[in-house]
Amino acid sequence: MIFENLFRRNNAPAAMVLLTRKEKWRIALNKFAGKMIGLLFVVIAIKMIPGLLGSSSAHAQPYAGYTQHETDGINTSNTIWTLVAAFLVFGMQPGFTFLEAGFARKRESVNILAECIFDTCICGLLFYAVGYAFMFGQGNGFIGFGGGALAGGDGHNWFFLQNTPATYGATGIPILAHWIFQYAFADTTSTVTSGAMIGRCGFRGDILYSICVTGFIYPIIGHWAWGPDGWLACMGSAGAAGDYNPGNLPGVHNGTIFRFLPSLGQGFRDFAGSTVVHTIGGIVSLAGAIVLGPRLGRVFKRDGGGMPPANNLVVAAVGGFMLWFGWYGFNPGSTLSAVDMQGIGRVAANTTLAACGGGIIAMYMGLWFGSTKGKFDVGLATNGFLAGLVAITCPCFWVSPTGAIIIGAIAGVVVYLGIELLEYLRIDDPIGAVPVHGFCGMWGTWSLGLFGTGEYICSGPTGPTLADPANKIDGVRGLFYGGDASVLKAQLIGNLTVVIATLVVSLIMFYIINALPHPWKLRVEKEGEEQGLDLFEHGVSAYVLED
Amino acid sequence: MIFENLFRRNNAPAAMVLLTRKEKWRIALNKFAGKMIGLLFVVIAIKMIPGLLGSSSAHAQPYAGYTQHETDGINTSNTIWTLVAAFLVFGMQPGFTFLEAGFARKRESVNILAECIFDTCICGLLFYAVGYAFMFGQGNGFIGFGGGALAGGDGHNWFFLQNTPATYGATGIPILAHWIFQYAFADTTSTVTSGAMIGRCGFRGDILYSICVTGFIYPIIGHWAWGPDGWLACMGSAGAAGDYNPGNLPGVHNGTIFRFLPSLGQGFRDFAGSTVVHTIGGIVSLAGAIVLGPRLGRVFKRDGGGMPPANNLVVAAVGGFMLWFGWYGFNPGSTLSAVDMQGIGRVAANTTLAACGGGIIAMYMGLWFGSTKGKFDVGLATNGFLAGLVAITCPCFWVSPTGAIIIGAIAGVVVYLGIELLEYLRIDDPIGAVPVHGFCGMWGTWSLGLFGTGEYICSGPTGPTLADPANKIDGVRGLFYGGDASVLKAQLIGNLTVVIATLVVSLIMFYIINALPHPWKLRVEKEGEEQGLDLFEHGVSAYVLED
Amino acid sequence: MIFENLFRRNNAPAAMVLLTRKEKWRIALNKFAGKMIGLLFVVIAIKMIPGLLGSSSAHAQPYAGYTQHETDGINTSNTIWTLVAAFLVFGMQPGFTFLEAGFARKRESVNILAECIFDTCICGLLFYAVGYAFMFGQGNGFIGFGGGALAGGDGHNWFFLQNTPATYGATGIPILAHWIFQYAFADTTSTVTSGAMIGRCGFRGDILYSICVTGFIYPIIGHWAWGPDGWLACMGSAGAAGDYNPGNLPGVHNGTIFRFLPSLGQGFRDFAGSTVVHTIGGIVSLAGAIVLGPRLGRVFKRDGGGMPPANNLVVAAVGGFMLWFGWYGFNPGSTLSAVDMQGIGRVAANTTLAACGGGIIAMYMGLWFGSTKGKFDVGLATNGFLAGLVAITCPCFWVSPTGAIIIGAIAGVVVYLGIELLEYLRIDDPIGAVPVHGFCGMWGTWSLGLFGTGEYICSGPTGPTLADPANKIDGVRGLFYGGDASVLKAQLIGNLTVVIATLVVSLIMFYIINALPHPWKLRVEKEGEEQGLDLFEHGVSAYVLED
Repeated sequence: MIFENLFRRNNAPAAMVLLTRKEKWRIALNKFAGKMIGLLFVVIAIKMIPGLLGSSSAHAQPYAGYTQHETDGINTSNTIWTLVAAFLVFGMQPGFTFLEAGFARKRESVNILAECIFDTCICGLLFYAVGYAFMFGQGNGFIGFGGGALAGGDGHNWFFLQNTPATYGATGIPILAHWIFQYAFADTTSTVTSGAMIGRCGFRGDILYSICVTGFIYPIIGHWAWGPDGWLACMGSAGAAGDYNPGNLPGVHNGTIFRFLPSLGQGFRDFAGSTVVHTIGGIVSLAGAIVLGPRLGRVFKRDGGGMPPANNLVVAAVGGFMLWFGWYGFNPGSTLSAVDMQGIGRVAANTTLAACGGGIIAMYMGLWFGSTKGKFDVGLATNGFLAGLVAITCPCFWVSPTGAIIIGAIAGVVVYLGIELLEYLRIDDPIGAVPVHGFCGMWGTWSLGLFGTGEYICSGPTGPTLADPANKIDGVRGLFYGGDASVLKAQLIGNLTVVIATLVVSLIMFYIINALPHPWKLRVEKEGEEQGLDLFEHGVSAYVLED
Repeated sequence: MIFENLFRRNNAPAAMVLLTRKEKWRIALNKFAGKMIGLLFVVIAIKMIPGLLGSSSAHAQPYAGYTQHETDGINTSNTIWTLVAAFLVFGMQPGFTFLEAGFARKRESVNILAECIFDTCICGLLFYAVGYAFMFGQGNGFIGFGGGALAGGDGHNWFFLQNTPATYGATGIPILAHWIFQYAFADTTSTVTSGAMIGRCGFRGDILYSICVTGFIYPIIGHWAWGPDGWLACMGSAGAAGDYNPGNLPGVHNGTIFRFLPSLGQGFRDFAGSTVVHTIGGIVSLAGAIVLGPRLGRVFKRDGGGMPPANNLVVAAVGGFMLWFGWYGFNPGSTLSAVDMQGIGRVAANTTLAACGGGIIAMYMGLWFGSTKGKFDVGLATNGFLAGLVAITCPCFWVSPTGAIIIGAIAGVVVYLGIELLEYLRIDDPIGAVPVHGFCGMWGTWSLGLFGTGEYICSGPTGPTLADPANKIDGVRGLFYGGDASVLKAQLIGNLTVVIATLVVSLIMFYIINALPHPWKLRVEKEGEEQGLDLFEHGVSAYVLED
Repeated sequence: MIFENLFRRNNAPAAMVLLTRKEKWRIALNKFAGKMIGLLFVVIAIKMIPGLLGSSSAHAQPYAGYTQHETDGINTSNTIWTLVAAFLVFGMQPGFTFLEAGFARKRESVNILAECIFDTCICGLLFYAVGYAFMFGQGNGFIGFGGGALAGGDGHNWFFLQNTPATYGATGIPILAHWIFQYAFADTTSTVTSGAMIGRCGFRGDILYSICVTGFIYPIIGHWAWGPDGWLACMGSAGAAGDYNPGNLPGVHNGTIFRFLPSLGQGFRDFAGSTVVHTIGGIVSLAGAIVLGPRLGRVFKRDGGGMPPANNLVVAAVGGFMLWFGWYGFNPGSTLSAVDMQGIGRVAANTTLAACGGGIIAMYMGLWFGSTKGKFDVGLATNGFLAGLVAITCPCFWVSPTGAIIIGAIAGVVVYLGIELLEYLRIDDPIGAVPVHGFCGMWGTWSLGLFGTGEYICSGPTGPTLADPANKIDGVRGLFYGGDASVLKAQLIGNLTVVIATLVVSLIMFYIINALPHPWKLRVEKEGEEQGLDLFEHGVSAYVLED
C-alpha cells in the first residue's frame, strides 16, 4: 500500500480542486503541525552534534562528615529510590488509561487511549526540549532557563537537556534521573487535563492544547512552586542570603531572588504536587470543560438526567487501584532521599491512610445522600480514594497518620460535593477530573496549614531536617497543632494564585483553539460527536466482540 | 441535587409511616454503622491532639562492628527493600480485583469491585486503629498491645499508632514502613476472604465480617505466629532467657513468655504467610461459603452441572499474572533485609519456580482428568500457578530451587483435587479461593517439614544467620534432607491450630451475621440475587456496551 | 468427578477400539509429552538430594580500595537494583497478555492467555534445568555449560542450577538473583515468539516449539552475545589474555576463547537485548508465521482486505503501557549496577525518549500514509512506542537523549513500513510482533554504530568505566559522532548472524513440527480454526456477558 502510494505520488498529476476556506485551514494547519514536528527534529539534529549531555563524571564533593565512599553509597541509595519512584509514577499511565476509558461511554473510549498515548509521548519530547529548563532551571521568580549557583552548573540554558550539571542541585541525584522523575509528574498533569474534556474534544484540538499545557503552562507555573528561585517557593523569606551568586563566581548568573511578602516568614509548600500537578491539571480541565460545553445529549440532574453510566466499571475500578499503586512513587519518591528513612515510611503510611479515609467517606456520602441513595456507588468509591490520594499529596511529609486520615476523609466529602456542584452548574466532567484533582488538590494544599504537626522541616540527601524545640526551631506547624496562621496563609496565597493564573491562561488558550476552523477547532464536528469520537477520529470501535 | 436535598431535609415535615420489624432493624443497623464510623473519627480526633507519632529521630545504636554511618547505610537499604516490597504487595489489589471480577458471573462483578475497594479502605483504618497493635505489639502469647522489651519502646499501647518506637524491634525498619508492609498483607487476607462468598453475600454483611476479620481475627491469630511473643512463634523454646524484661527496666512490662511444648525444640515458622495470610483467608472464606450455601441455580458436577463460566477470562488471567508480579514483594520483602543478598535472591527464584511447577501441573491435571478432558483449561492454569505461589510462601527462605519446583508442582495437584472436592461437597467457591489459598496454604506450611535444606536459619538486618555444621548448629532441616520430624511437627501443630481456630471463630461470626435481619443478613435477599448483586446493591452493570 | 474417574479407571475394562494412524500419533505424543514432563521431575528428584545450591556464604573478596563493609553495601545496592528490575521485567507478562489478547480476534484470545501462562511456566523450568547453563555458563564460543575462571566457580556444569558459585562472575550479584533477572528476559522472548502465530497454531504445537525456543534456541544463540566466552561477545579481541585459565588453577577448565575477526577491534554489543531478546523473538515468530501461513479467511490489503480489527483495544493499549512500565526494569536493570548512577539515569531517560519518538512518528505515519489515512490509529501508536522501546534496548547505555529520540523516531518509521511489508508479502502477523520486535530489534542494534557518543564503555559493580580522552581511551563511538565504521560493522555482523541462524534453525523446527500428525501438527485442524481456537482447544469463550 505504502509502496503504491509513494509511486502514485510521484507520477499522478494533481487534480484541480476548489477548496473551501475550512479545507484550506485544515490543510494549512496539518502542514503546520507536520512542519513543527519536523522542525523539532531538525532542531534536535542541530543540537545533537556539538555539546551532548555533559557527562561530568568527576566525583561530586563528599558530604560534610562523610567519606567519598560513604557519599557515593548515599547517592546510590537515593538514586535507586528516585528511579524506582519514577517508574511507579510512570506506572500510573496504564491506570489513568483504564480509569478514563472505563468511566467514559464506549463510543469515546478509543479516543481516550489515543490521547493518553499521544500526551505521554509529546510530553516526553517537550519536557526534554523546554519543560525541564523552564521548570527546574534557574532564571527568575517566574520562569527558569538553566544553570546557576542555585541549580548547579554554569549559566547556560538547559534546553534539549544541554549544559546540565551531573546532579540536580544539592540532591546528589543524576540530572537524567531527576528528569525522568519529573517527566512522569508532567505526564500525570497532562493526562489529568484531558479528563473533563472527554467525548467532544477533537483530536487535533487535543494536540494543540497538550503542546501548550505540557510544554509551557505546567512547567512555567510549576517553576513558581518548585523552581530553585520560584517566587512562591521563595515567598516569605527575607534578606540577601539567597542571592544567586553571592560569591560573584565567574560565569555564573548574577541577580537576586524575588522575595514576595518577606514578612510572612513562610514559603509556599507542595511536597509532591497537590497544587503543581493536580490543581493545575484539574483547573485546566475545568477550563476545557467550560469552553467545550457538555456532550451532545448530556442531560444534567436538575434537568432530570444524570451522568451516563460507565461503559466498563471493571477496568475503571482496577485503573483506580493501579493509580493508588503508582502513588507510592509519587509521594514517597518526592523526598528524593531514602536516607530519610522515617520520612519515606511516614509519607507512604500517610498516603495509604488518606486514601482509605477518602474511599470510605465518599462511598457513604453516596449511600446516604447520592442520586442512587441506598446503593453503594463504586464510581464514587473509586473517586473517593483518589480524592484522598490527591489531597495528601501536598501535606504527606508534614502531617501525622491521624491527620492523614482526616484530610483524606474530608477529601471524600469534597469530591462528592464537587461532583454535585459541577452537575448543578451543568459542567460535563465525565470522569470527575475537576473534583478529584482540582478541588481536592486545593483542599489538600490548604490542609497543611491546619494539620502540619510542627515536627518536620524537609528531607536532604543525608537525612531529614527536623524541628528542634530546644533551639526554638519549629517545623511546619498548622493551626490545629498550636501553630499560627502563617502556614495556612502561605498555602492559600500559593494555591489560589496558581488556580487563578491557570484558569485565566487556559481559558484564553481554549477559547483561541476553539475559534480555529475545523478540524483544529477544540470541539469536534457535530457529526463526529454523533457517531462517536472513536469511529470519527480513529476509525475503530473499542470492542469487536462478534468475531 | 445535594443542595436541594439538604434544603428539603430541614423544612419538609416527616411523614408518618409504619415500619415493619425488618425495616426498623435496617434503620437501626444503618445508624449503628454510621455511628461506629463516626465514633472512629471522634476517637481519632481525640487521639490526635496529644501524643502524635513519636518521631524519635535520635540515631539508633550502631550495629555491633559497624560505624554509625555504616549502620545508617544498612538501614537505608533495608528500608528501601521493605517499602518497595510493600508497594508490590499493595499492587496485588488490582490483580485480585481483576481475577475475582473476571472469574465471576457478569451480574456480580461490580459487587466484587465494591468489596475490594471497601475492604482495602476499612482494613487500612482498622490496622491503624487496632490491628497492628494486636498483631505486632507485645502482650502475651495470644494477643499483643504495644511496646515492651521485645518489641522496642516502653509499655504503652500502640492503638492508633500511638507510642510506637522509631523502628520495629531489632529490624532497623521505621515503624511506619513496617506498618505499611504489614497493612498490605492484612489487606491481602481481607481480599482472599471475600472470594468464596461471591454472588450471594449482601454488601452490608460484607461490611460487618470485614470489620471482624481485618480488625480482629487476622491480627489476633496472626499474633500467635508473628507477634514478638506469639505462642506459636515461641513454641518449643525453653528457659527464661526470653523474658520480657530481664533487666527489670523501669516502665517496661514484666512477665514471661508463654512457652508451649518446650521439648519440641522447634517453633512454628511461616516466612511470608502461607498460614498467616493464605490459610486464614482461605478458611474464613470456606466458613462463609458453608454458612451462605451455594448461589441460586448453581448446579454441581455430581448433579449434572458445573461451575458457571468466567465472564471475562482476559482480565482474570491477567489478574493472575499481576498477582504473581506482586508476590515478588510478598516473599522476598519478608526478609525485611536486603543485606541478606543471597536470601532475597533465593526467595525470588524459589517463588518463581514454585509458580512454574504449579501452573504446568494444574494445566495437565485438567487436561488428563478434568471435566473438560482433552482441553487446556486456562482457569485451572491460573489457579495452578497461584497455588504454587501460595505454597512456597511459607518455606521460600529455607528450601532449594529444586524443592520449590516440587512444592509448587504438588500444589498444582492439591488445587485441582481441592476444586473437585468442594464441587463434590456442593460448596460453591466461584473463584477457587479455598483450594488456592486455604488448602495450598496448608500444604505449603507443612512442606517446610519435608523440604527444609538445613542450611538457612533466618535473615537479620546485617545479613543472614546460617547453619554452622562445624559447630553443630543446624538450620531448618526437613525429613527429605536428613532432618528429624520436629520441624514437620511444629508446622503441623501451628498450621492446624490456626485452621481450627479460624474455622470455629469464623463459623460463629458468619452464623451470627446471617441471623441478623435484612439487609444486614449475610445472605442477600432472594430478589437481589435473582436480579444480580450489581443491580441490586450498586444500581449499575459492569459493562454498558451499547452506547 | 476425579474420585469417580479414578475409580472407573481401575475397574472398567478397556473397550476395544480401532485407532487411526492419526489417533495413534496423538496418543503416542501425548504420552511422550507426559513422560518428558515426568522425566523432568524424576531428574529433578535425583538431583535434589546431593549437591544442592552451593550456598557459599563466605564473604566475597572486597573490591580493590573498598573495605569489606563498603563492598557489602555496594553489592546490596546492586542486588536491590537487579531484583527490582527483574520484578519489573516479569511485570511485562500481564502487559504482553493484554496486548496480544486485545489485538487478536475474540475467538482466539483465550488461546493467547493459555500460551502466555504455559510459556511462562515452561520457560522457568527449562531455564532452571538447562537454559541458564547454556547461556551464562562457560563452555566455548557457541554454548555454555557451567563454571570456570570467567564465570566464577569450578569446572562443573550448572544444569538444574547445581554447582553454581555464590555470585555471577565479577558482578557481585547472587547467582539466583541473576537467574531470575535473566529468566524474565527469556520469558519475554518466549512470549514475543507466539505473537505472529496467533489464531492458527495448535496448543500442542505451541508446547513443542516453546520447549525448543526457551530451552535451546534462545539460550544457545544468546550465549554467543552474552555468555562469558560467547564468540560474538569476544569477537574482535586479540591475544591470549582472555584465556579461560591463565593461572592453570586446578579443577578449572582449560582452553582458549574463540576470537573471531581479531582485527575488527570491536566486539558485538547488545546492552539489554535488541538482538538477543527482540530480534530472536521476532525472527522465530516470522518463521512460524511463514510456515503456518495466514489465518483462514484473512484477506490482505493488496487483495482488498486488511487486518481484522482488534477485539479489545482498551486492554491492548493499556497492555502496551504496562510493557513500557516493565521496560524500566529491562533496560536500566541491565547495568546490574546501581552504583553507576549516571548510567542508570541515562538509560532510563533514553528509554523514555525513544518510546516518545516512536509513538509520535508511528501515529503520524498512519495519519499521513496509512490505510485509514486522516485517522489517528491507536494500534499503530501503541506499536510505535513499543518499536522505540525495542530499538533503544541495545544502544540505551551508549547514546545521548537526543540520539535516543532519533533512534526511536526512526523505529516508528520502521514499524510502519514493516507492517506494510508483511501485508504486502501476505504474511499474517496479528499483533505486529515481527515489525516491532524483529525489524526494530535489528534497527536498534545497528543504530549503536551510528549514534554511540564515544563517552561510555561499560558499567561495573563499583561504577562505570568511561572514555578517557587524555589517555586516548575511547568509548563506543558511532559514525555520527566521529567514530569509524568498526562499531557499525561489529553490530551488523553480530545482528545479521543471529538473524540468519535464528531464521534457519526455527524454519527447520517449525517445518518438522508442522509435519507431525494432528494434534501435534503446528497448524491446528481446519475445524478448530473455524470455530475458533478458544472453543476448540480450551472449551470456553473469553467473554460471557449475558449472565
